[in-house]
Amino acid sequence: MISFESDYIAGAHPKVLEALLQTNMVALSGYGSDPFTERAKENIRKVCECPEAEVHFLVGGTQTNAVVISSLLKSYEGVVAAETGHVSTHEAGAIEHTGHKVLALSQCDGKIDSSELASYLAGFFADANHEHMVFPGMVYISHPTEYGTLYSKSELEAIADVCRRYEMPLYLDGARLGYGIMSRETDVTMADIARLCDVFYIGGTKVGALCGEAVVFTKSNAPKHFTTIIKQNGALLAKGRLLGVQFDALFTDNLYFDISKHAIHMAEQLKAVLKEKGYTFYLESPTNQQFVVLEDEKYEKLKEQVAMSFWEKPDETHTVVRLATSWSTREEDVEVLRGIL
Amino acid sequence: MISFESDYIAGAHPKVLEALLQTNMVALSGYGSDPFTERAKENIRKVCECPEAEVHFLVGGTQTNAVVISSLLKSYEGVVAAETGHVSTHEAGAIEHTGHKVLALSQCDGKIDSSELASYLAGFFADANHEHMVFPGMVYISHPTEYGTLYSKSELEAIADVCRRYEMPLYLDGARLGYGIMSRETDVTMADIARLCDVFYIGGTKVGALCGEAVVFTKSNAPKHFTTIIKQNGALLAKGRLLGVQFDALFTDNLYFDISKHAIHMAEQLKAVLKEKGYTFYLESPTNQQFVVLEDEKYEKLKEQVAMSFWEKPDETHTVVRLATSWSTREEDVEVLRGIL
Amino acid sequence: MISFESDYIAGAHPKVLEALLQTNMVALSGYGSDPFTERAKENIRKVCECPEAEVHFLVGGTQTNAVVISSLLKSYEGVVAAETGHVSTHEAGAIEHTGHKVLALSQCDGKIDSSELASYLAGFFADANHEHMVFPGMVYISHPTEYGTLYSKSELEAIADVCRRYEMPLYLDGARLGYGIMSRETDVTMADIARLCDVFYIGGTKVGALCGEAVVFTKSNAPKHFTTIIKQNGALLAKGRLLGVQFDALFTDNLYFDISKHAIHMAEQLKAVLKEKGYTFYLESPTNQQFVVLEDEKYEKLKEQVAMSFWEKPDETHTVVRLATSWSTREEDVEVLRGIL
Amino acid sequence: MISFESDYIAGAHPKVLEALLQTNMVALSGYGSDPFTERAKENIRKVCECPEAEVHFLVGGTQTNAVVISSLLKSYEGVVAAETGHVSTHEAGAIEHTGHKVLALSQCDGKIDSSELASYLAGFFADANHEHMVFPGMVYISHPTEYGTLYSKSELEAIADVCRRYEMPLYLDGARLGYGIMSRETDVTMADIARLCDVFYIGGTKVGALCGEAVVFTKSNAPKHFTTIIKQNGALLAKGRLLGVQFDALFTDNLYFDISKHAIHMAEQLKAVLKEKGYTFYLESPTNQQFVVLEDEKYEKLKEQVAMSFWEKPDETHTVVRLATSWSTREEDVEVLRGIL
Repeated sequence: MISFESDYIAGAHPKVLEALLQTNMVALSGYGSDPFTERAKENIRKVCECPEAEVHFLVGGTQTNAVVISSLLKSYEGVVAAETGHVSTHEAGAIEHTGHKVLALSQCDGKIDSSELASYLAGFFADANHEHMVFPGMVYISHPTEYGTLYSKSELEAIADVCRRYEMPLYLDGARLGYGIMSRETDVTMADIARLCDVFYIGGTKVGALCGEAVVFTKSNAPKHFTTIIKQNGALLAKGRLLGVQFDALFTDNLYFDISKHAIHMAEQLKAVLKEKGYTFYLESPTNQQFVVLEDEKYEKLKEQVAMSFWEKPDETHTVVRLATSWSTREEDVEVLRGIL
Repeated sequence: MISFESDYIAGAHPKVLEALLQTNMVALSGYGSDPFTERAKENIRKVCECPEAEVHFLVGGTQTNAVVISSLLKSYEGVVAAETGHVSTHEAGAIEHTGHKVLALSQCDGKIDSSELASYLAGFFADANHEHMVFPGMVYISHPTEYGTLYSKSELEAIADVCRRYEMPLYLDGARLGYGIMSRETDVTMADIARLCDVFYIGGTKVGALCGEAVVFTKSNAPKHFTTIIKQNGALLAKGRLLGVQFDALFTDNLYFDISKHAIHMAEQLKAVLKEKGYTFYLESPTNQQFVVLEDEKYEKLKEQVAMSFWEKPDETHTVVRLATSWSTREEDVEVLRGIL
Repeated sequence: MISFESDYIAGAHPKVLEALLQTNMVALSGYGSDPFTERAKENIRKVCECPEAEVHFLVGGTQTNAVVISSLLKSYEGVVAAETGHVSTHEAGAIEHTGHKVLALSQCDGKIDSSELASYLAGFFADANHEHMVFPGMVYISHPTEYGTLYSKSELEAIADVCRRYEMPLYLDGARLGYGIMSRETDVTMADIARLCDVFYIGGTKVGALCGEAVVFTKSNAPKHFTTIIKQNGALLAKGRLLGVQFDALFTDNLYFDISKHAIHMAEQLKAVLKEKGYTFYLESPTNQQFVVLEDEKYEKLKEQVAMSFWEKPDETHTVVRLATSWSTREEDVEVLRGIL
Repeated sequence: MISFESDYIAGAHPKVLEALLQTNMVALSGYGSDPFTERAKENIRKVCECPEAEVHFLVGGTQTNAVVISSLLKSYEGVVAAETGHVSTHEAGAIEHTGHKVLALSQCDGKIDSSELASYLAGFFADANHEHMVFPGMVYISHPTEYGTLYSKSELEAIADVCRRYEMPLYLDGARLGYGIMSRETDVTMADIARLCDVFYIGGTKVGALCGEAVVFTKSNAPKHFTTIIKQNGALLAKGRLLGVQFDALFTDNLYFDISKHAIHMAEQLKAVLKEKGYTFYLESPTNQQFVVLEDEKYEKLKEQVAMSFWEKPDETHTVVRLATSWSTREEDVEVLRGIL
């Protein structure tokens, strides 16, 4: 059995684990007040070319989305997101659980469009009854999206522009940010993201860590007492070192980007094999997640030998599946797959 | 200036006000423990032909929806509703404020379709990832809908059927229930609603009362300690008599239905005048709310003399407006309108 | 049976009811956008000598407390209140339901003490672990308190002083404010309250209205989009006139204060009768609520003829009961009581 | 600098880290569906002598308390706890953030008393106004308590008895459970806890893990769809293995209890040193947390060489501090401390 089920099938990158091992017996204060955490923050600020950024570490993606979004919205506001956004669909209602509506926009390949956003916002404020409706209070995008696609720099700029016009924070969910930044087809840098977004997170769980996401507030705009907010949401680790040490390792010597590049390289090989074998792609993805359409019969047979993720059923007789590479994918895994396909 | 702006432009029906006046100085215990409230409940049980019904009085529609829905759902469940349902759009996120997602289905003339509902529910439980999604926990319909339309008895039965198959309560928002029941084009009775729904509310605010809605749990299924739940939501009146006395009056001598019938009669005259004058209807409504499409120029001129509700803009040059009749509409109001149109 | 059970045993003051009757058929826009509501606000601003005050009308006391408090607090803040404060004990957890802790201070005759408040706040911010605790975010006092007692002007000033030092809003629950203002033993005026508090509410339900409370933000400090917040909490009446017309009547020709004075006059007669008959007072109250300690046997017998409120059991063989007067109490009621005692 | 600051100053026990290392590259499905997690659950069931127990892994203590408590309470219920309970004081209002009040009982050495509990519950239901109050819905105790103290078996039985009489779940916070079970002064076993409590958690963070707590529902009483509830609260790890592998290691070959025993042994040495040097204990603790009262001057000097936790100020000139041992404390650490004291 070979697995392309997700980008979180392995533990931590060996260098990350090594860092945990090396620092294991150092006595440290809790809750993120240790020097490793501080150094990780500093390194992230550098990578983002954003010296004034406020960085906080949280444990997982859904938690991060819920804490960040609920801490930035007023009670009567909702978050605007693609109808396929992770917050819209696969977080078990974590956003609504905090009291806020996800205001869904239509999507194309997992992305929202700045013109549709602008026209939705214009329409909202023009509606005579808008005081009886949920106010759009911020915009959520994922990059890469849930479909592995990427915004171009000009698309990001256009969305950021609309957000600024309406004085609305732009929040980028970077659960797989490394894989986006290291895609060969992107013109977006970490500095661009820090410049264009008001807040974003750098995913660790799917890019080399056991767990952990780094939230970056780029405009000195972290909510007051954000540590207490994290605590109140049950998201503050007593052993904050677990996050600090891992991110310190990931943002030392370019590790985060090197291992992301490897995953992209593996995805390209995966893609080549799938193409060579005549598989139909559901859409064109330039990152580590690849989506193919299988006849159901084929799917049933294949999944006996290859772990993949069920994605959706486009019709009665076909299934869309996802195959993901990551920092842990080995060239030989792709070769084994080639033998099976 | 003549007003067809809404069905809540006047105070209370004179007989309702008279009842408040007559009972004003009677010393009563608070919080709905008085005999008028008890009698109102008893009369409602009779009208619904549902002797075991549990009846509670709340103050307004949004409050009622939020309290009923949040008290019936588990934390991980959402409420299924038409994308145009009042809970989906015009309650300022009151449902999400209680922590629950509104799961929107597409609509036709404001109604949901039982087949789409069934197929949505089947798809949800078939999805391999549904444990990461918001569970559908109950179904909300409005009758009449926000567009004045009505479900037929067989449509209601089909929806109730799907709900029972999935062991999901069916909740009917009857903010304008009287106007639905007294429409000439309905085959649905109060007893049908009590039989098919697990809970519904009989709107008072829009049908003769100063305020107040009567929630009816039809299957001995009111949440335990529902009075405490009402209190916790700030919805319990110290002077519960205000609701009890009004509903006692409305459900004595058929008043609720007689005044609803009058509103329907007025709507028919309004419709005749609009047709006679060549106005285009946005859709066909058999109840007290009528929707017409106006050229923007015409709209601007008309609203100097007639109070109407802006509804939506179907295109750049037209506006949909709503004209509503109610128990308080007088034949002469329609005549004045005829003169203006 | 004679009733001194509460100050909400009757309907509305006749002049309030008359105003509802007079305006009943005037066609008005909804949600508080009518001229009666506007005039009521203007009159309240005048009475408070606070021309810049923002006034909003809500339906009941628990609702008002929950909406005001939750709209002013940050997520990690709680409200400081006496352990006997209404928000601490008798609102079924409405404040916690909005996500906020009630931080209870000890009480004396229902009041908090400014020194204890100051020392609690100093201690909180000095605690090395306070980032893991609920931040005090505002102070709640009731005036009159739940025990009928009153703060003196200097006590109020001292509390307001502490609040200002900590940049914390001071909120006064005036469910029975009229009875406090018209007590013979107070030196506190409406203008004092408007000057010293950041927000307070003027109770209608217990002082002449069928329902309704007027929230007054005194420093141009109403939360942005407060109407949407009210709506989202299910507290916005479609027929906003119900509140506007009543408060317009109450704040025309000094009605609110005249009827409050009457209640105080009745309370003095009640007190005199109780003293004359040798009853033991639980505490000294200068307003419309009187608390007496009864032997349980006496209590059982008395309540066959007099409706009173059970308050608490100070020991195994005694019961504290409350007798309340209000605008609706008649001199003859007290005479009847004298005959019974 | 020597640290007795807390029981979470080091990383993971070497054997736990080793297990993470050994399993690091095994490809596993996410969200706790892996075989290590399954084996850990099975081992926990065995240790608790409770084969029908449902075990779930969460990340931290505050998160666990909030998720468990909010999933077991009805909206109108609160959780009863000691006024010094972790949920009452040091979780930044996490419980209230879920909408529930913490109903505080008085404490003695951090413990509640079964008689006071019984009398509080009897009083609550006897109160004529209890429908306007927060219902007690479950009981929370910590064992060891926040002060290091332990309930005896008979004390636990008495509390469990009251809970059963009122049909209220008993929940035990075992953040430091190992240190309680291995105390020389306890007569309480894991099986006792599983038998007497309806739900409890076995703390990992403070007893050898990097993070993680094991929630045990002992009576087949886990809320339906508890995994979705965990997800909705942002508490479900994509790499569920992080928790599964650690608890698998901790509950293999008695590791959890062996390392707890070591901590107790170290605490005894620490205690001996403190006594020998004439320090005053704040209270008598039989577990790994020791509390001493220092003159402020002494405290200021000592903390230059020893990391301790500030606990509270009993008066103007003294400070209570906590010194904690754990699995990671070495005999030589105590010797160094002896040299300093």
